[in-house]
Amino acid sequence: MAGRTFQSRLMTGSGKFDSFETMRQSLAASGSEIVTVAVRRVQTNAPGHEGLAAALDWQKLWMLPNTAGCQTADEAIRVARLGREMAKLLGQEDNNFVKLEVIPDPKYLLPDPIDTLKAAEQLVKEGFAVLPYINADPVLAKRLEEVGCATVMPLGSPIGSGQGIRNAASIQIIVENAQIPVVVDAGIGTPSEAAYSMELGADALLINTAIAKATDPVAMGRAMGLATEAGRLAYLAGRIPVKTHASASSPTTGQVSH
Amino acid sequence: MAGRTFQSRLMTGSGKFDSFETMRQSLAASGSEIVTVAVRRVQTNAPGHEGLAAALDWQKLWMLPNTAGCQTADEAIRVARLGREMAKLLGQEDNNFVKLEVIPDPKYLLPDPIDTLKAAEQLVKEGFAVLPYINADPVLAKRLEEVGCATVMPLGSPIGSGQGIRNAASIQIIVENAQIPVVVDAGIGTPSEAAYSMELGADALLINTAIAKATDPVAMGRAMGLATEAGRLAYLAGRIPVKTHASASSPTTGQVSH
Amino acid sequence: MAGRTFQSRLMTGSGKFDSFETMRQSLAASGSEIVTVAVRRVQTNAPGHEGLAAALDWQKLWMLPNTAGCQTADEAIRVARLGREMAKLLGQEDNNFVKLEVIPDPKYLLPDPIDTLKAAEQLVKEGFAVLPYINADPVLAKRLEEVGCATVMPLGSPIGSGQGIRNAASIQIIVENAQIPVVVDAGIGTPSEAAYSMELGADALLINTAIAKATDPVAMGRAMGLATEAGRLAYLAGRIPVKTHASASSPTTGQVSH
Amino acid sequence: MAGRTFQSRLMTGSGKFDSFETMRQSLAASGSEIVTVAVRRVQTNAPGHEGLAAALDWQKLWMLPNTAGCQTADEAIRVARLGREMAKLLGQEDNNFVKLEVIPDPKYLLPDPIDTLKAAEQLVKEGFAVLPYINADPVLAKRLEEVGCATVMPLGSPIGSGQGIRNAASIQIIVENAQIPVVVDAGIGTPSEAAYSMELGADALLINTAIAKATDPVAMGRAMGLATEAGRLAYLAGRIPVKTHASASSPTTGQVSH
Repeated sequence: MAGRTFQSRLMTGSGKFDSFETMRQSLAASGSEIVTVAVRRVQTNAPGHEGLAAALDWQKLWMLPNTAGCQTADEAIRVARLGREMAKLLGQEDNNFVKLEVIPDPKYLLPDPIDTLKAAEQLVKEGFAVLPYINADPVLAKRLEEVGCATVMPLGSPIGSGQGIRNAASIQIIVENAQIPVVVDAGIGTPSEAAYSMELGADALLINTAIAKATDPVAMGRAMGLATEAGRLAYLAGRIPVKTHASASSPTTGQVSH
Repeated sequence: MAGRTFQSRLMTGSGKFDSFETMRQSLAASGSEIVTVAVRRVQTNAPGHEGLAAALDWQKLWMLPNTAGCQTADEAIRVARLGREMAKLLGQEDNNFVKLEVIPDPKYLLPDPIDTLKAAEQLVKEGFAVLPYINADPVLAKRLEEVGCATVMPLGSPIGSGQGIRNAASIQIIVENAQIPVVVDAGIGTPSEAAYSMELGADALLINTAIAKATDPVAMGRAMGLATEAGRLAYLAGRIPVKTHASASSPTTGQVSH
Repeated sequence: MAGRTFQSRLMTGSGKFDSFETMRQSLAASGSEIVTVAVRRVQTNAPGHEGLAAALDWQKLWMLPNTAGCQTADEAIRVARLGREMAKLLGQEDNNFVKLEVIPDPKYLLPDPIDTLKAAEQLVKEGFAVLPYINADPVLAKRLEEVGCATVMPLGSPIGSGQGIRNAASIQIIVENAQIPVVVDAGIGTPSEAAYSMELGADALLINTAIAKATDPVAMGRAMGLATEAGRLAYLAGRIPVKTHASASSPTTGQVSH
Repeated sequence: MAGRTFQSRLMTGSGKFDSFETMRQSLAASGSEIVTVAVRRVQTNAPGHEGLAAALDWQKLWMLPNTAGCQTADEAIRVARLGREMAKLLGQEDNNFVKLEVIPDPKYLLPDPIDTLKAAEQLVKEGFAVLPYINADPVLAKRLEEVGCATVMPLGSPIGSGQGIRNAASIQIIVENAQIPVVVDAGIGTPSEAAYSMELGADALLINTAIAKATDPVAMGRAMGLATEAGRLAYLAGRIPVKTHASASSPTTGQVSH
């Protein structure tokens, strides 16, 4: 992705954990290598963000600065630039990644297609590897690819809602059309939903709330990591077709039977 | 289960594989410890069943003889007894397990509740650990538990159909009511469906066609094993509640944030 | 059905309405001709059941006595006989209908397949037109047909739950196999679910709670009547196939276009 | 809508019918008062479009010219102007309606959010009542409302696919946020899906393929009309809540019971 190679197809977020220690253990259990960080809140030393720089080991993890809290293209562009500086200060000199979020809607946290495209165009020009968070709109996804985004990140359902994949048909079309990786971001609540997203052909997932707010975040982190791998394996392994009738596991004839 | 302990919660079948070697590798990749075998076809040396005894290592695997091909209680009782003999001959002296299938319907392979209950009563009296294959009928499940069955095995959708879990509400009620393990059997086509079944609270799964008939059965076996574990972990880890609105991963306040 | 002809394919219940007047208006708005009545409660003058005989016009409606409150076959048989007497007293001399409910489960009100079949056999022998309430079990449905039931009445989801059709695949198999009418009973909460049941090929529906407990029962009664008719029309009219891709409403060529 | 009042909440299209006579009868059976017409094809006398002006009675029906076949904002603006002229020539002097379709994608016929917004702004300035066809993107819907559109028309699934409502969560958010009517357009295949869309709170529907390509278009037209009314009635009547457990239709106590 954007010229770099990662082993894990599960990205995670650092928000909402009860403690730094739980966060570290949960991310480790998930196997995730890419962790997203809200630049604006870290920069402003928002409550709970003190010490974030020290809390994660950026020798092992790759930082994905995000523009959470931005409502317009201009804001997001400014915060993206700050994010690049932050990554450099933390030792990731060549990190130009940005998760682009332009979110005018405070209730459902849904992104703005117009300003997201506008900001993406500018940030690509400035050399960023842009990963835009979008509604699952196949035409918008294609336009973002055409302006040079590194991935598209369609949502399955609203952030933190745990509703799972409510728009599978649209995500499948995005996957079918895309020449860049598709990362399903937001809405996943369970491992089955993570696996399902991968079975649809997504290249990767980003999960935060479902891990951080589980009763046992470390166990859930591990579950999500396993499910992401299972879904990818199944996508490659080729599932059986869905049939309307039954098909005996124990046929009367055949080379081998149980 | 029935006084024995197993590590894996994924049971598999031995039907439909293209070769013994693929079967062995797929079962190994899945991590499964319990494998079901169609007694009637092995006993009659049906095409493709020659050599089945030698094909699997019964020192490592636990045999679950099944009564596939039986349409009445009487037939199933007779075949169950034959299955017990078969297990003894293969070295499992204390194996009294039987997967009870009474299937009068050739198209959808759906079980008969009346004769299944009748056969289960008799087999329990004869000392079998009875694992009956049933429609997801909570009252029937309770009656089977009351006559002494070791588990109940509700189907998610018709055998080999790959339709997944088409009756989740009923399976949840069975799980809620049961004092014995609930094993979801039949219909699972993908890892997401396997994980989902476990997230509903099932204690174990039985999967055959989805592995055996995948394009790459070994990879799919591994995917199913991972997904079963992921679903169980998530069930124990406590998923986030489903919300109708969004919940920011990056709250304004809070102890830790991204 | 059972030798009688009705215009409407929507049956209703008389339970749970706030007043007799609302009940009468709601049933009229629905167009329903068959109304089910809980024999046991009427016979015992349970609270709120006084005056039920006078509350509905049995010159226009056809009574379907039901065995609600029975937990075993024996109880249900006795109550069915009482129901026949009740219908005669109310002027329906030739009414041998009974809605057979054998429900041991107080929480989900799910029926017992074993005792339902047992009671059905006996009641058919006694000349009843038996309409058994069942889980959507295709093999059980076939057995009930074979012992001479007039219909089968599979549930879509638990009574009064409003969960809709949670087992469409099973109901479709029942419809496909049945030579007698299939009436979807229980679980329908909305007109879309009513229409969907009819589109699956059901011959009729029975709806009570969704009408009686709607904020405006009369309007909901009318909505359910329209939806039942719409679903039946659509079943006969032949829906378009589901396609994975789009199909322009405005083709480039063709005889007529918009 | 846009200052005019209509009785029916079902809009229809004139494409894909086998004959003018079937089209007329189907639209009449549906009760629809607004019919959309593809301006570009009528203007160019595309095959099958000769005589369209005479085929429908514009004294009774209200024309909704659409910009099908346009891939950019500029094209759509030009075609919208042509549509206004066409309506005037057919006697609808005060008809400024336009169904705005900007569709660059030939396979799934999905609309372009960027050019749709651009065209909408211009057409509103020119005095059109703009009804834009969009992906179910709540933020885009709000922006279109802010620039003065008369409605928004989110798709349920791709045009003509008959997949139904594949994005109910998004449509519900659009309905919740909108101060203008929401018309679900595209994807509806059955009356149950029509009713469901209305139950979600949509103000109206537009259906073409599901009627025109049904085996019996006239019966399906009638079914769709009934279902649209049923769904609207139910939305106003207030459905029962969904419960996880059962609720007896025949309670032990209560004012009235069956």
